[in-house]
This record gives sequence, C-alpha cells and structure tokens, in this order.
Amino acid sequence: MAVKLVVIKEEILKDNNEMSAMLRNKFKKNKTLVMNLMSSPGAGKTSVILETLGRLGGEIKSAVIEGDITSTVDAEKLDDVGVPTLQINTGGSCHIDSAMIEQAIVDFDLDPYDYIIVENVGNLVCPAEFEVGEDIRVMILSVPEGHDKPKKYPLMFTETEACLLNKIDLLPYTDFDMDEFKDTVKSLNPNTTIFPVSMKTKEGIDEWIKWIRGKIEDKMGG
Amino acid sequence: MAVKLVVIKEEILKDNNEMSAMLRNKFKKNKTLVMNLMSSPGAGKTSVILETLGRLGGEIKSAVIEGDITSTVDAEKLDDVGVPTLQINTGGSCHIDSAMIEQAIVDFDLDPYDYIIVENVGNLVCPAEFEVGEDIRVMILSVPEGHDKPKKYPLMFTETEACLLNKIDLLPYTDFDMDEFKDTVKSLNPNTTIFPVSMKTKEGIDEWIKWIRGKIEDKMGG
Repeated sequence: MAVKLVVIKEEILKDNNEMSAMLRNKFKKNKTLVMNLMSSPGAGKTSVILETLGRLGGEIKSAVIEGDITSTVDAEKLDDVGVPTLQINTGGSCHIDSAMIEQAIVDFDLDPYDYIIVENVGNLVCPAEFEVGEDIRVMILSVPEGHDKPKKYPLMFTETEACLLNKIDLLPYTDFDMDEFKDTVKSLNPNTTIFPVSMKTKEGIDEWIKWIRGKIEDKMGG
Repeated sequence: MAVKLVVIKEEILKDNNEMSAMLRNKFKKNKTLVMNLMSSPGAGKTSVILETLGRLGGEIKSAVIEGDITSTVDAEKLDDVGVPTLQINTGGSCHIDSAMIEQAIVDFDLDPYDYIIVENVGNLVCPAEFEVGEDIRVMILSVPEGHDKPKKYPLMFTETEACLLNKIDLLPYTDFDMDEFKDTVKSLNPNTTIFPVSMKTKEGIDEWIKWIRGKIEDKMGG
C-alpha cells in the first residue's frame, strides 16, 4: 500500500507542476505578481492580507483567491472591505492545487490586477508540496506556535522565500526563543527573509510592505 | 485527475480502517486504552501528554507513540522524564496511519500498559480522516488559533469526543470569544466535552484528568 501511495503522489505532483507552469505563464502575460500565502490555522493569514492590501493602497490593484475546506468566513471579511475575492472550497482537501486555481480564474479577467494573493488552507504541512502558479511563496508562523516549529515542519520553511513571524505582541507571555528560531530558519533556508510582525500593534509591518511592494513593482515593470 | 484521486483516497481509507480494526482488537486483549491526540502544530500536544502522565501517576502504566514528520524533538522531551516512547517518522506524510502504528509496535510488548497515547502529526485537517486503532480521539485547540476554527475545520471537531482548549492564560491578550467557540463546537458535535485548560497556569486540568482517568479505568475493568 505504501508503495502505491508514493507512486500516485508522484503522479499527482507531476500533473500539478505542469498545470502550475501553465498558470505561471498566464500570470506572466498580465504582469501580475501571484503570492502563495501559507500557515497553520489561526496564524493570521487573513489579518496579514487585510493589513497588506490596506497599506499598499489603491495604486496597486489587488485580488485574493481564498482557499477553505468548507466555509466562506475569510472571504466575507475581505468582501466587507471591498477586496475582490474568489472563493475556492476544497471539499475536504487540505491544500489548494493548480487545478483548483485554474477553475477559479476561468471566468475572471486577470488583466486589471497587479497582485493576487492565494490564501491557502490552514496547514503547515501539505500546501508546501503543491505549486499553484505562484511567483513567490510566503509563510506565517505565529509566536504561540513555538520556536521549535522549523525543526519539526522543515519543508514549509525551506520552500518559502519570506517568513512572517506574527503575534510578536504575545512574546512576553510565552517562552518563544527568538534567537533559536532565527538560527534554525536560517540554517534550513539561508535565502529567506524573516519579518517579526504584529497585526495587533502594527509593529514590523513597514519592513514587510517595503519588501512585497518591491516584488510587485518589479513584476509590473518586467 | 480529481476523480482518480478520490478513488485512491477511498481505497487508502478502506485499507486503513481494516488495519485499524485489527489493531483495536489487539489493544482490547491487553485492556489498553489507546488515545489518538490531534491538533495543529504548537497547540500543546506534548505539554498535555507530560502533564497528564505526571498527574495519572505510576499506578496507570502509560506509553506514548510519537508521530513526527522528521524530528525526534518531542520524543526526547518524553524520554527525559522516563516516559516509554516509540518514535514514528512519517517521512513527509502529514498524518499517522494504522500501518505505521502496526510497524511501530511489532516488537513492543503491550502487555504492561494500561494507557497509550498516540501523538499525531501537527495538523488540524488530515489526521481526523485516519483511524489508528484508537479507543478515543481527543483534540486540542489553543486560544491564539481563534474561536472561528471549528467553523473552518469542522471534521476535527466532529470526529473527536473531547476538545481541550489550551492556553486559556492567553485569553486576556486575544479576542477569543469563548461563548461563540463553545456554541459552534456543540452545534457540530453535541456529544463532545470541552475542557478549557492552561498547561502554564495548570487551570482546568483536574477536570480533564478525572475524565481521562475514568476512561482508562473503564477499559482496565472491561
């Protein structure tokens, strides 16, 4: 059984990568930066999206593709503040794949958009294996999850090029070891950038916005 | 592709359920209560295990089957305090299945044990689909993850018979709505028991210990 499972998984990942390359080509024509945003449930994906789009302002046209197993809780929050949002319900699947993205955008005019965020299903494991046509992959860890998570769930940290460490306002109430966290992340992935942030106190957000704005403008120019 | 994936998944789940029934029979002969403990990364599975086994004391003989994708971080913590621990490394898989348990216990004498905890991989989605021969399924949500999680990840809440709400010491620093949380959980699963606890301040732990001790003693007697 184990062998069969591995073969099927390889086939699925291969099919997914092909579809992802097709999507990437499509996004490239539109000079749209696509960001795959991943984290555990409750680390703050939707809060980060709301804050980021608010700060980028109206000059950068943005939309969100929202992935949830079953609900529309997050899409409603985004819709409330006027963010164009496409909802994917994965029907039990623990990650978004490229076929889901392809279906979501089939009747959607990409042309006006400079920046599309794919909010993945809350899961620190599986989404890291599935490309969704993105240009960049960003992850969030939140302070209460603990500084040992990079050791225990390394793939998410090696497969992303930025890591937002959210909820730093909770640092005084936890035993989170910032130095150990940073050392472990950097040893796994020397090229990643770590942004300690709090969506509550707004600490650290400027640095993140500067970084992501640069990525979006590079894509718009290229 | 989607159809193939569904068929394969059904086969895998069917194979897994058969193996799980076999394991359950084996555990029954030994009058060992097996508990499958599930949560997101960092919700507090290992802390709950350490606290629970410490409070149950030496009269109840306990062991832990520790599931991690790659590391032995948690097994080392348990080993440090003398808890017999079997390590499963899932090699990338985001959940434990029954075949992994079967392999883990092949050379392990179950006879002396009254209580075995299976610490699943940190993931609020996939582990809920895979039985591992357990008698009871228990989940942990932690306060910083947010009160909306039952709505967004309902399967974990419907598939478990107790929910520990951990890190209640962080309630003053978050916007967690306890009433909404309890209402949503109870509407999904009226038979579950919710235990608000803090492994840090030790609040609420007595009620949980009373409940789990009852389950273990029922099994020992039966």
